[in-house]
Amino acid sequence: MRPLILITNDDGYQSAGIAALQRVARKYGDVVVVAPRHNSSGLSHSITSKTPLRVRAVDIQDDCKVYFCTGTPADCVKLAEGHFCPRKPDLVLSGINAGSNASINELYSGTMGAVREACSDGLTAVGFSLVDYREKSDFEEILPYVETIVRQVLQQGIPAGITLNVNIPNLKHDEIKGIRICRQGASRWVDSYERRVDPHGHDYYWLSGRFEELDNGEDTDLWALRNGYISIVPGTIDSTHSDSIPLLTSRYADILN
Amino acid sequence: MRPLILITNDDGYQSAGIAALQRVARKYGDVVVVAPRHNSSGLSHSITSKTPLRVRAVDIQDDCKVYFCTGTPADCVKLAEGHFCPRKPDLVLSGINAGSNASINELYSGTMGAVREACSDGLTAVGFSLVDYREKSDFEEILPYVETIVRQVLQQGIPAGITLNVNIPNLKHDEIKGIRICRQGASRWVDSYERRVDPHGHDYYWLSGRFEELDNGEDTDLWALRNGYISIVPGTIDSTHSDSIPLLTSRYADILN
Repeated sequence: MRPLILITNDDGYQSAGIAALQRVARKYGDVVVVAPRHNSSGLSHSITSKTPLRVRAVDIQDDCKVYFCTGTPADCVKLAEGHFCPRKPDLVLSGINAGSNASINELYSGTMGAVREACSDGLTAVGFSLVDYREKSDFEEILPYVETIVRQVLQQGIPAGITLNVNIPNLKHDEIKGIRICRQGASRWVDSYERRVDPHGHDYYWLSGRFEELDNGEDTDLWALRNGYISIVPGTIDSTHSDSIPLLTSRYADILN
Repeated sequence: MRPLILITNDDGYQSAGIAALQRVARKYGDVVVVAPRHNSSGLSHSITSKTPLRVRAVDIQDDCKVYFCTGTPADCVKLAEGHFCPRKPDLVLSGINAGSNASINELYSGTMGAVREACSDGLTAVGFSLVDYREKSDFEEILPYVETIVRQVLQQGIPAGITLNVNIPNLKHDEIKGIRICRQGASRWVDSYERRVDPHGHDYYWLSGRFEELDNGEDTDLWALRNGYISIVPGTIDSTHSDSIPLLTSRYADILN
Protein backbone atom coordinates (compact mmCIF):
# COMPACT_ATOMS: atom_id res chain seq x y z
CA MET A 1 0.00 0.00 0.00
CA ARG A 2 1.29 3.49 -0.82
CA PRO A 3 1.97 5.76 2.15
CA LEU A 4 -0.94 7.95 3.24
CA ILE A 5 0.10 11.59 3.41
CA LEU A 6 -2.11 14.13 5.17
CA ILE A 7 -1.54 17.74 4.14
CA THR A 8 -2.65 20.95 5.78
CA ASN A 9 -1.44 24.54 6.09
CA ASP A 10 -2.42 27.89 7.55
CA ASP A 11 -2.66 29.96 4.37
CA GLY A 12 -5.87 28.23 3.32
CA TYR A 13 -6.74 25.41 0.94
CA GLN A 14 -6.51 27.64 -2.14
CA SER A 15 -2.96 28.88 -1.55
CA ALA A 16 -0.19 28.24 -4.03
CA GLY A 17 2.02 26.75 -1.33
CA ILE A 18 -0.32 23.91 -0.51
CA ALA A 19 -0.83 23.14 -4.20
CA ALA A 20 2.93 22.84 -4.60
CA LEU A 21 3.21 20.55 -1.58
CA GLN A 22 0.39 18.39 -2.95
CA ARG A 23 2.24 17.90 -6.24
CA VAL A 24 5.29 16.61 -4.38
CA ALA A 25 3.28 14.38 -2.04
CA ARG A 26 1.30 12.69 -4.83
CA LYS A 27 4.52 11.27 -6.21
CA TYR A 28 5.07 9.36 -2.99
CA GLY A 29 1.67 8.43 -1.63
CA ASP A 30 -2.07 8.79 -1.49
CA VAL A 31 -2.94 12.27 -0.33
CA VAL A 32 -5.66 13.71 1.87
CA VAL A 33 -5.76 17.49 2.16
CA VAL A 34 -7.76 19.08 4.97
CA ALA A 35 -6.89 22.76 5.16
CA PRO A 36 -8.47 25.91 6.53
CA ARG A 37 -11.03 27.65 4.36
CA HIS A 38 -9.42 31.03 4.89
CA ASN A 39 -5.96 32.33 5.69
CA SER A 40 -5.27 31.36 9.30
CA SER A 41 -1.80 32.77 9.82
CA GLY A 42 -0.76 33.49 13.40
CA LEU A 43 -3.26 31.04 14.89
CA SER A 44 -0.51 29.01 16.56
CA HIS A 45 -1.85 25.81 18.11
CA SER A 46 -5.37 27.13 18.72
CA ILE A 47 -8.34 24.78 18.59
CA THR A 48 -12.05 25.35 18.22
CA SER A 49 -14.22 23.97 20.98
CA LYS A 50 -17.11 26.40 21.30
CA THR A 51 -18.44 26.33 17.76
CA PRO A 52 -18.89 23.30 15.54
CA LEU A 53 -16.76 22.82 12.44
CA ARG A 54 -17.85 22.39 8.85
CA VAL A 55 -15.94 20.48 6.22
CA ARG A 56 -16.54 20.52 2.49
CA ALA A 57 -15.13 18.25 -0.21
CA VAL A 58 -13.44 20.36 -2.88
CA ASP A 59 -11.84 17.83 -5.21
CA ILE A 60 -12.08 14.07 -4.76
CA GLN A 61 -9.79 11.90 -6.87
CA ASP A 62 -8.59 8.35 -6.31
CA ASP A 63 -5.13 9.32 -5.08
CA CYS A 64 -5.88 12.80 -3.74
CA LYS A 65 -8.86 14.06 -1.77
CA VAL A 66 -9.11 17.75 -0.93
CA TYR A 67 -11.36 19.25 1.74
CA PHE A 68 -11.60 22.63 3.36
CA CYS A 69 -12.48 23.04 7.00
CA THR A 70 -13.82 26.08 8.84
CA GLY A 71 -11.43 25.52 11.77
CA THR A 72 -7.80 26.23 12.60
CA PRO A 73 -4.82 24.32 11.21
CA ALA A 74 -4.69 22.16 14.37
CA ASP A 75 -8.45 21.49 14.02
CA CYS A 76 -7.83 20.34 10.44
CA VAL A 77 -5.34 17.72 11.62
CA LYS A 78 -7.54 16.47 14.46
CA LEU A 79 -10.62 16.26 12.28
CA ALA A 80 -8.78 14.70 9.33
CA GLU A 81 -7.41 11.93 11.53
CA GLY A 82 -10.80 11.09 12.94
CA HIS A 83 -13.05 11.47 9.92
CA PHE A 84 -11.29 12.06 6.58
CA CYS A 85 -8.26 9.76 6.54
CA PRO A 86 -9.08 6.17 5.53
CA ARG A 87 -6.25 5.00 7.82
CA LYS A 88 -3.59 6.45 10.11
CA PRO A 89 -1.44 8.83 8.03
CA ASP A 90 2.18 7.77 7.53
CA LEU A 91 3.20 11.38 7.22
CA VAL A 92 1.68 14.80 7.89
CA LEU A 93 2.95 17.77 5.89
CA SER A 94 2.05 21.39 6.64
CA GLY A 95 2.68 24.31 4.27
CA ILE A 96 4.34 25.42 2.19
CA ASN A 97 3.89 28.56 4.22
CA ALA A 98 4.43 31.93 2.57
CA GLY A 99 6.74 33.54 5.13
CA SER A 100 9.33 32.50 7.70
CA ASN A 101 8.51 30.22 10.59
CA ALA A 102 12.11 30.13 11.73
CA SER A 103 13.27 31.10 15.20
CA ILE A 104 10.63 32.60 17.45
CA ASN A 105 8.07 32.79 14.63
CA GLU A 106 7.50 29.09 15.24
CA LEU A 107 5.53 30.05 18.37
CA TYR A 108 2.88 31.99 16.47
CA SER A 109 2.75 29.76 13.43
CA GLY A 110 -0.45 27.99 12.46
CA THR A 111 1.64 25.88 10.07
CA MET A 112 3.68 24.60 12.99
CA GLY A 113 0.60 24.40 15.25
CA ALA A 114 -0.73 21.75 12.86
CA VAL A 115 2.63 19.95 12.98
CA ARG A 116 2.67 19.97 16.79
CA GLU A 117 -0.91 18.68 16.84
CA ALA A 118 0.01 15.78 14.53
CA CYS A 119 3.08 15.02 16.65
CA SER A 120 0.99 15.02 19.84
CA ASP A 121 -1.19 12.38 18.20
CA GLY A 122 1.83 10.18 17.53
CA LEU A 123 2.21 11.04 13.83
CA THR A 124 5.33 11.92 11.83
CA ALA A 125 4.97 15.58 10.87
CA VAL A 126 6.96 18.23 9.03
CA GLY A 127 6.25 21.92 8.42
CA PHE A 128 7.61 23.74 5.36
CA SER A 129 7.96 27.50 5.02
CA LEU A 130 9.42 29.73 2.32
CA VAL A 131 10.96 32.97 3.57
CA ASP A 132 9.10 35.12 1.07
CA TYR A 133 6.33 37.55 1.91
CA ARG A 134 5.25 38.56 -1.59
CA GLU A 135 1.65 38.10 -2.67
CA LYS A 136 2.80 35.58 -5.31
CA SER A 137 5.64 33.46 -3.98
CA ASP A 138 7.42 31.25 -6.50
CA PHE A 139 7.38 27.76 -5.01
CA GLU A 140 8.65 26.02 -8.16
CA GLU A 141 12.28 26.99 -7.55
CA ILE A 142 12.43 25.29 -4.18
CA LEU A 143 10.24 22.27 -4.89
CA PRO A 144 13.12 19.86 -5.65
CA TYR A 145 14.41 20.54 -2.12
CA VAL A 146 11.01 19.95 -0.60
CA GLU A 147 10.86 16.67 -2.49
CA THR A 148 14.30 15.63 -1.25
CA ILE A 149 13.24 16.22 2.35
CA VAL A 150 9.85 14.49 1.98
CA ARG A 151 11.56 11.44 0.45
CA GLN A 152 14.18 11.38 3.18
CA VAL A 153 11.58 11.57 5.94
CA LEU A 154 9.54 8.77 4.34
CA GLN A 155 12.65 6.60 4.05
CA GLN A 156 14.50 7.42 7.26
CA GLY A 157 11.73 8.62 9.58
CA ILE A 158 11.94 11.15 12.40
CA PRO A 159 12.73 10.32 16.06
CA ALA A 160 9.48 9.58 17.94
CA GLY A 161 7.76 12.62 19.43
CA ILE A 162 9.87 15.05 17.37
CA THR A 163 8.63 17.61 14.81
CA LEU A 164 10.60 19.06 11.93
CA ASN A 165 10.42 22.77 11.10
CA VAL A 166 11.84 23.35 7.61
CA ASN A 167 12.52 26.91 6.43
CA ILE A 168 13.72 27.66 2.94
CA PRO A 169 15.46 30.87 1.89
CA ASN A 170 13.91 32.85 -0.93
CA LEU A 171 16.54 32.07 -3.56
CA LYS A 172 16.73 30.54 -6.99
CA HIS A 173 17.24 26.78 -6.97
CA ASP A 174 20.93 27.02 -7.87
CA GLU A 175 21.62 29.71 -5.29
CA ILE A 176 20.53 27.49 -2.39
CA LYS A 177 23.69 26.14 -0.80
CA GLY A 178 22.22 23.05 0.83
CA ILE A 179 20.33 21.74 3.84
CA ARG A 180 21.35 21.98 7.51
CA ILE A 181 20.05 20.54 10.77
CA CYS A 182 19.90 23.53 13.15
CA ARG A 183 18.76 24.71 16.51
CA GLN A 184 16.17 27.49 16.80
CA GLY A 185 17.96 30.86 16.92
CA ALA A 186 17.00 33.33 19.63
CA SER A 187 15.14 36.41 18.46
CA ARG A 188 12.30 38.65 19.46
CA TRP A 189 9.68 40.90 18.00
CA VAL A 190 10.03 44.46 19.14
CA ASP A 191 6.38 45.27 19.02
CA SER A 192 5.30 48.70 18.18
CA TYR A 193 1.57 48.69 17.83
CA GLU A 194 0.51 51.63 15.79
CA ARG A 195 -2.25 53.64 17.40
CA ARG A 196 -4.79 55.25 15.08
CA VAL A 197 -8.05 57.10 15.56
CA ASP A 198 -11.15 56.00 13.67
CA PRO A 199 -13.62 58.43 12.04
CA HIS A 200 -15.69 58.31 15.24
CA GLY A 201 -12.82 59.47 17.43
CA HIS A 202 -12.00 56.09 18.97
CA ASP A 203 -8.52 54.58 19.23
CA TYR A 204 -7.56 51.33 17.57
CA TYR A 205 -4.23 49.49 17.37
CA TRP A 206 -2.50 47.76 14.45
CA LEU A 207 0.18 45.17 15.11
CA SER A 208 3.37 46.23 13.41
CA GLY A 209 6.76 45.41 14.95
CA ARG A 210 10.32 44.71 13.93
CA PHE A 211 12.10 41.35 14.05
CA GLU A 212 15.32 41.39 16.04
CA GLU A 213 17.85 38.54 15.88
CA LEU A 214 19.53 37.88 19.25
CA ASP A 215 21.73 34.98 18.27
CA ASN A 216 24.86 34.80 16.10
CA GLY A 217 25.39 31.04 16.48
CA GLU A 218 26.35 29.34 13.22
CA ASP A 219 24.28 26.34 14.32
CA THR A 220 21.00 28.31 14.22
CA ASP A 221 18.22 28.43 11.64
CA LEU A 222 18.73 32.21 11.49
CA TRP A 223 22.34 31.77 10.40
CA ALA A 224 21.49 29.05 7.89
CA LEU A 225 18.79 31.12 6.20
CA ARG A 226 20.95 34.26 6.15
CA ASN A 227 23.69 32.25 4.46
CA GLY A 228 21.64 30.55 1.78
CA TYR A 229 20.92 27.22 3.48
CA ILE A 230 17.64 25.45 4.15
CA SER A 231 17.20 24.97 7.92
CA ILE A 232 15.64 21.93 9.55
CA VAL A 233 14.99 22.32 13.29
CA PRO A 234 13.93 19.22 15.25
CA GLY A 235 11.41 20.27 17.88
CA THR A 236 9.68 18.82 20.91
CA ILE A 237 6.13 19.37 22.09
CA ASP A 238 7.21 18.91 25.71
CA SER A 239 8.20 22.42 26.75
CA THR A 240 9.74 21.38 30.10
CA HIS A 241 13.11 23.04 30.70
CA SER A 242 14.75 20.12 32.50
CA ASP A 243 17.80 22.02 33.78
CA SER A 244 15.52 24.40 35.67
CA ILE A 245 13.95 21.60 37.72
CA PRO A 246 16.86 21.04 40.15
CA LEU A 247 17.61 24.77 40.08
CA LEU A 248 14.08 25.78 41.13
CA THR A 249 13.80 22.86 43.53
CA SER A 250 16.72 24.35 45.40
CA ARG A 251 15.83 28.03 44.97
CA TYR A 252 12.19 27.55 46.05
CA ALA A 253 13.00 24.95 48.74
CA ASP A 254 11.19 26.78 51.53
CA ILE A 255 7.79 26.59 49.81
CA LEU A 256 8.07 23.02 48.47
CA ASN A 257 7.11 19.66 49.95
CA MET B 1 8.79 51.91 43.78
CA ARG B 2 6.37 49.00 44.14
CA PRO B 3 6.72 46.21 41.58
CA LEU B 4 4.55 46.58 38.47
CA ILE B 5 2.48 43.46 37.89
CA LEU B 6 0.75 42.92 34.55
CA ILE B 7 -2.18 40.50 34.64
CA THR B 8 -4.01 38.77 31.83
CA ASN B 9 -5.90 35.52 31.25
CA ASP B 10 -7.87 33.67 28.60
CA ASP B 11 -11.22 33.40 30.35
CA GLY B 12 -11.93 37.10 29.86
CA TYR B 13 -11.63 40.20 32.00
CA GLN B 14 -14.84 39.49 33.89
CA SER B 15 -13.92 36.00 35.06
CA ALA B 16 -13.71 35.13 38.75
CA GLY B 17 -10.20 33.73 38.32
CA ILE B 18 -8.69 37.00 37.17
CA ALA B 19 -10.42 38.89 39.96
CA ALA B 20 -8.87 36.51 42.49
CA LEU B 21 -5.42 36.93 40.94
CA GLN B 22 -5.83 40.71 41.04
CA ARG B 23 -6.57 40.63 44.77
CA VAL B 24 -3.33 38.75 45.41
CA ALA B 25 -1.25 40.94 43.11
CA ARG B 26 -2.45 44.22 44.64
CA LYS B 27 -0.88 43.20 47.93
CA TYR B 28 2.54 43.16 46.28
CA GLY B 29 2.55 45.78 43.58
CA ASP B 30 0.83 48.18 41.27
CA VAL B 31 -1.37 46.26 38.89
CA VAL B 32 -2.29 46.68 35.24
CA VAL B 33 -4.87 44.24 33.88
CA VAL B 34 -5.26 43.87 30.12
CA ALA B 35 -7.41 40.84 29.42
CA PRO B 36 -9.54 39.56 26.56
CA ARG B 37 -13.06 40.89 26.32
CA HIS B 38 -14.51 37.43 25.84
CA ASN B 39 -13.56 33.91 26.79
CA SER B 40 -10.55 33.01 24.64
CA SER B 41 -9.83 29.48 25.79
CA GLY B 42 -7.89 27.26 23.41
CA LEU B 43 -6.33 30.18 21.52
CA SER B 44 -2.79 29.05 22.37
CA HIS B 45 -0.20 31.62 21.32
CA SER B 46 -2.26 33.11 18.50
CA ILE B 47 -1.89 36.79 17.60
CA THR B 48 -4.04 39.18 15.63
CA SER B 49 -2.41 40.83 12.65
CA LYS B 50 -5.17 41.24 10.08
CA THR B 51 -7.65 43.24 12.13
CA PRO B 52 -6.92 46.13 14.45
CA LEU B 53 -7.44 45.79 18.19
CA ARG B 54 -9.62 47.85 20.48
CA VAL B 55 -8.95 48.45 24.14
CA ARG B 56 -11.34 49.91 26.70
CA ALA B 57 -10.65 51.11 30.22
CA VAL B 58 -12.95 49.32 32.66
CA ASP B 59 -11.78 50.43 36.08
CA ILE B 60 -8.96 52.90 36.67
CA GLN B 61 -7.63 53.24 40.21
CA ASP B 62 -4.29 54.49 41.48
CA ASP B 63 -2.85 51.06 42.18
CA CYS B 64 -4.90 48.98 39.73
CA LYS B 65 -5.93 49.76 36.17
CA VAL B 66 -8.20 47.35 34.31
CA TYR B 67 -8.69 47.24 30.55
CA PHE B 68 -10.29 44.78 28.21
CA CYS B 69 -8.89 44.13 24.75
CA THR B 70 -10.58 42.63 21.71
CA GLY B 71 -7.54 40.45 20.94
CA THR B 72 -6.08 37.17 22.11
CA PRO B 73 -4.25 36.64 25.43
CA ALA B 74 -0.87 37.04 23.65
CA ASP B 75 -2.15 40.25 22.01
CA CYS B 76 -3.10 41.56 25.46
CA VAL B 77 0.48 41.11 26.70
CA LYS B 78 2.07 42.69 23.61
CA LEU B 79 -0.29 45.63 23.63
CA ALA B 80 -0.08 46.17 27.39
CA GLU B 81 3.70 46.32 27.25
CA GLY B 82 3.69 48.89 24.49
CA HIS B 83 0.78 51.12 25.47
CA PHE B 84 -0.78 50.42 28.88
CA CYS B 85 2.09 49.74 31.26
CA PRO B 86 3.74 52.90 32.62
CA ARG B 87 7.05 50.98 32.76
CA LYS B 88 8.41 47.50 32.07
CA PRO B 89 6.43 45.03 34.22
CA ASP B 90 8.40 43.25 36.94
CA LEU B 91 6.07 40.29 36.73
CA VAL B 92 3.37 39.01 34.38
CA LEU B 93 0.65 36.76 35.80
CA SER B 94 -1.88 34.89 33.68
CA GLY B 95 -5.03 33.25 35.02
CA ILE B 96 -6.31 31.93 37.27
CA ASN B 97 -7.59 29.68 34.53
CA ALA B 98 -10.71 27.61 35.16
CA GLY B 99 -9.46 24.19 34.03
CA SER B 100 -6.20 22.28 33.79
CA ASN B 101 -3.27 23.51 31.72
CA ALA B 102 -1.08 20.67 32.89
CA SER B 103 0.67 18.25 30.58
CA ILE B 104 -0.24 18.53 26.91
CA ASN B 105 -3.02 21.03 27.62
CA GLU B 106 -0.29 23.64 27.86
CA LEU B 107 -0.02 23.55 24.05
CA TYR B 108 -3.58 24.74 23.50
CA SER B 109 -3.74 27.12 26.41
CA GLY B 110 -4.35 30.81 25.87
CA THR B 111 -3.32 31.35 29.50
CA MET B 112 0.08 29.89 28.75
CA GLY B 113 0.23 31.57 25.32
CA ALA B 114 0.22 34.89 27.18
CA VAL B 115 2.96 33.62 29.49
CA ARG B 116 5.11 32.49 26.55
CA GLU B 117 4.57 35.85 24.86
CA ALA B 118 5.73 37.71 27.98
CA CYS B 119 8.74 35.40 28.28
CA SER B 120 9.67 36.00 24.64
CA ASP B 121 9.74 39.71 25.45
CA GLY B 122 12.17 39.12 28.31
CA LEU B 123 9.63 39.36 31.13
CA THR B 124 9.17 37.14 34.18
CA ALA B 125 5.87 35.32 33.69
CA VAL B 126 3.76 32.72 35.49
CA GLY B 127 0.49 31.04 34.51
CA PHE B 128 -1.97 29.76 37.12
CA SER B 129 -4.71 27.21 36.51
CA LEU B 130 -7.20 25.51 38.79
CA VAL B 131 -8.17 21.98 37.77
CA ASP B 132 -11.88 22.64 38.04
CA TYR B 133 -14.29 22.82 35.13
CA ARG B 134 -17.42 23.97 36.95
CA GLU B 135 -19.22 27.13 35.91
CA LYS B 136 -18.41 28.64 39.32
CA SER B 137 -14.99 27.60 40.48
CA ASP B 138 -14.07 28.44 44.06
CA PHE B 139 -10.77 30.28 43.88
CA GLU B 140 -10.78 31.36 47.54
CA GLU B 141 -9.64 27.98 48.82
CA ILE B 142 -6.45 28.02 46.78
CA LEU B 143 -5.61 31.71 46.98
CA PRO B 144 -3.13 31.41 49.87
CA TYR B 145 -1.07 29.06 47.69
CA VAL B 146 -1.20 31.45 44.74
CA GLU B 147 0.01 34.18 47.06
CA THR B 148 2.88 32.04 48.34
CA ILE B 149 4.05 31.41 44.78
CA VAL B 150 3.68 35.04 43.65
CA ARG B 151 5.67 36.19 46.68
CA GLN B 152 8.36 33.59 46.04
CA VAL B 153 8.69 34.56 42.36
CA LEU B 154 8.95 38.25 43.27
CA GLN B 155 11.63 37.50 45.87
CA GLN B 156 13.62 34.73 44.18
CA GLY B 157 12.93 35.28 40.48
CA ILE B 158 12.81 32.74 37.67
CA PRO B 159 15.78 31.66 35.53
CA ALA B 160 16.00 33.93 32.45
CA GLY B 161 13.96 32.78 29.47
CA ILE B 162 11.95 30.31 31.55
CA THR B 163 8.16 30.28 32.10
CA LEU B 164 6.31 28.76 35.04
CA ASN B 165 3.13 26.76 34.52
CA VAL B 166 1.34 26.36 37.87
CA ASN B 167 -1.58 23.94 38.14
CA ILE B 168 -3.59 23.58 41.32
CA PRO B 169 -5.75 20.57 42.20
CA ASN B 170 -9.39 21.22 42.94
CA LEU B 171 -9.22 20.57 46.67
CA LYS B 172 -9.99 22.37 49.89
CA HIS B 173 -7.10 24.41 51.24
CA ASP B 174 -6.26 21.88 53.95
CA GLU B 175 -6.43 18.94 51.56
CA ILE B 176 -3.66 20.31 49.33
CA LYS B 177 -0.46 18.47 50.27
CA GLY B 178 2.01 21.05 49.04
CA ILE B 179 3.88 22.39 46.02
CA ARG B 180 6.20 20.45 43.69
CA ILE B 181 8.53 21.39 40.83
CA CYS B 182 7.68 18.92 38.05
CA ARG B 183 8.24 18.01 34.44
CA GLN B 184 5.35 18.01 32.00
CA GLY B 185 3.76 14.56 31.95
CA ALA B 186 3.11 12.91 28.60
CA SER B 187 -0.51 12.59 27.58
CA ARG B 188 -2.74 12.90 24.56
CA TRP B 189 -6.25 13.75 23.60
CA VAL B 190 -8.01 10.90 21.91
CA ASP B 191 -10.17 13.06 19.73
CA SER B 192 -13.56 11.88 18.81
CA TYR B 193 -15.28 14.66 16.97
CA GLU B 194 -18.98 14.10 17.12
CA ARG B 195 -20.64 14.32 13.76
CA ARG B 196 -24.15 15.76 13.69
CA VAL B 197 -26.57 16.78 10.96
CA ASP B 198 -28.14 20.24 10.97
CA PRO B 199 -31.82 20.91 10.16
CA HIS B 200 -30.78 21.56 6.55
CA GLY B 201 -29.20 18.13 6.12
CA HIS B 202 -25.56 19.28 6.36
CA ASP B 203 -22.89 17.68 8.54
CA TYR B 204 -21.10 19.53 11.30
CA TYR B 205 -18.51 18.39 13.84
CA TRP B 206 -18.19 19.09 17.56
CA LEU B 207 -14.87 18.65 19.27
CA SER B 208 -15.25 16.17 22.11
CA GLY B 209 -12.41 13.82 23.05
CA ARG B 210 -10.99 12.02 26.03
CA PHE B 211 -7.78 12.85 27.90
CA GLU B 212 -5.36 9.94 28.15
CA GLU B 213 -2.36 10.01 30.50
CA LEU B 214 0.70 8.29 29.03
CA ASP B 215 3.14 8.84 31.85
CA ASN B 216 3.35 7.32 35.33
CA GLY B 217 6.45 9.25 36.39
CA GLU B 218 6.26 10.57 39.95
CA ASP B 219 8.15 13.65 38.78
CA THR B 220 5.32 14.77 36.46
CA ASP B 221 2.63 17.41 36.86
CA LEU B 222 0.06 14.69 36.20
CA TRP B 223 1.27 12.68 39.20
CA ALA B 224 1.44 15.75 41.43
CA LEU B 225 -2.12 16.82 40.66
CA ARG B 226 -3.48 13.28 41.01
CA ASN B 227 -1.86 13.08 44.43
CA GLY B 228 -3.03 16.38 45.83
CA TYR B 229 0.02 18.56 45.06
CA ILE B 230 0.29 21.85 43.21
CA SER B 231 2.58 21.40 40.18
CA ILE B 232 5.02 24.01 38.90
CA VAL B 233 6.58 23.16 35.53
CA PRO B 234 9.46 25.34 34.28
CA GLY B 235 9.14 25.73 30.52
CA THR B 236 11.16 27.02 27.61
CA ILE B 237 9.96 28.88 24.53
CA ASP B 238 12.77 27.38 22.47
CA SER B 239 11.26 24.14 21.22
CA THR B 240 14.53 22.75 19.77
CA HIS B 241 15.08 19.11 20.74
CA SER B 242 18.85 19.28 21.10
CA ASP B 243 19.49 15.53 21.29
CA SER B 244 17.91 15.10 17.86
CA ILE B 245 20.41 17.43 16.17
CA PRO B 246 23.36 14.99 16.08
CA LEU B 247 20.97 12.09 15.51
CA LEU B 248 19.38 13.68 12.43
CA THR B 249 22.71 15.06 11.22
CA SER B 250 23.90 11.48 11.00
CA ARG B 251 20.65 9.90 9.78
CA TYR B 252 20.10 12.50 7.02
CA ALA B 253 23.81 12.82 6.14
CA ASP B 254 23.32 12.14 2.43
CA ILE B 255 21.07 15.17 1.92
CA LEU B 256 23.00 17.63 4.11
CA ASN B 257 25.84 20.02 3.36
